[in-house]
Amino acid sequence: MIQKEKIIDKQRLFTGNYLSLETWKTHLSDTISATREIVIAPNAVGIVPVDENRQIHLVRQARPAVGEILLEIPAGLIDAGESPEQAARRECSEEINLIPGNLRKILTYYHAEGYSTGVMTLFLGTELAPCHSQQNDQDEVLEHIAVPLEQAANWIRQGKFKDSKSMLGILFAIDIL
Amino acid sequence: MIQKEKIIDKQRLFTGNYLSLETWKTHLSDTISATREIVIAPNAVGIVPVDENRQIHLVRQARPAVGEILLEIPAGLIDAGESPEQAARRECSEEINLIPGNLRKILTYYHAEGYSTGVMTLFLGTELAPCHSQQNDQDEVLEHIAVPLEQAANWIRQGKFKDSKSMLGILFAIDIL
Repeated sequence: MIQKEKIIDKQRLFTGNYLSLETWKTHLSDTISATREIVIAPNAVGIVPVDENRQIHLVRQARPAVGEILLEIPAGLIDAGESPEQAARRECSEEINLIPGNLRKILTYYHAEGYSTGVMTLFLGTELAPCHSQQNDQDEVLEHIAVPLEQAANWIRQGKFKDSKSMLGILFAIDIL
Repeated sequence: MIQKEKIIDKQRLFTGNYLSLETWKTHLSDTISATREIVIAPNAVGIVPVDENRQIHLVRQARPAVGEILLEIPAGLIDAGESPEQAARRECSEEINLIPGNLRKILTYYHAEGYSTGVMTLFLGTELAPCHSQQNDQDEVLEHIAVPLEQAANWIRQGKFKDSKSMLGILFAIDIL
């Protein structure tokens, strides 16, 4: 029977604005121990916003970590004191100027279970209402596009999406709607 | 038109055995700059191994970063000098004692595009042949289980999987097979 690894010691190596880094000494069994390098990452939300014409609203944005401009569902970090639902509504209003009247949680998963504590929660957002354009994060530049949900599903098969949250969100949304 | 962020400077803060941490100064435009905290993560592979009885072979393993025992497809890091295909065959032999005679690449994606350089490549592995049990990684303890592919797909809907690679791999494999 597999056991959880017992954490014996944690050492903080770096505390950043966005993420932190620790090494954890763990015991796998009485005789095997290991040192794990762990990223403490903030939790995040992604939203699949689908309007009454079955159009999905997507954003294109620069992702310097991977050196590419990616096509994605709206997403972002959960701010201090926010619920995942509040973060989902805020990110929609900031990124696509639409607020979902209805949010349905579709999935929670670990995005980098090998080394990161980060949790991603995905929502289906419907009953989209226009909202006054809010200030985006100052260091985010986004392009907003809307396409039929089925076209987005085809784009997954064609390899147009390169992040897990967009693909999982769209595949689950297609299954629900 | 969205532009890639121009990287002006990189500062290495930590070099680990598994991952490294850097801060990157970037320019979003002539007037907006940002500092990004970036994890340099090794690339990895995941394999959906499906045998001639349409059984998928999965592993359960402790994931200390998220404090849980997760049910996953076989997966692991690409070692220095290895191709993704070689890593996929090696991980299958180490984790489930089966080597796929046929490997089909199904997907490449960024697992944490917001802050990590890491790339995940997923394969469908078929024509599975038993191999002599190889030594697992010393600091990995795994449990191997096999279930019908359709049952694994149901487990996705039921929330039994909590990592992106297993869900995406199984959903794509169902679409192909």
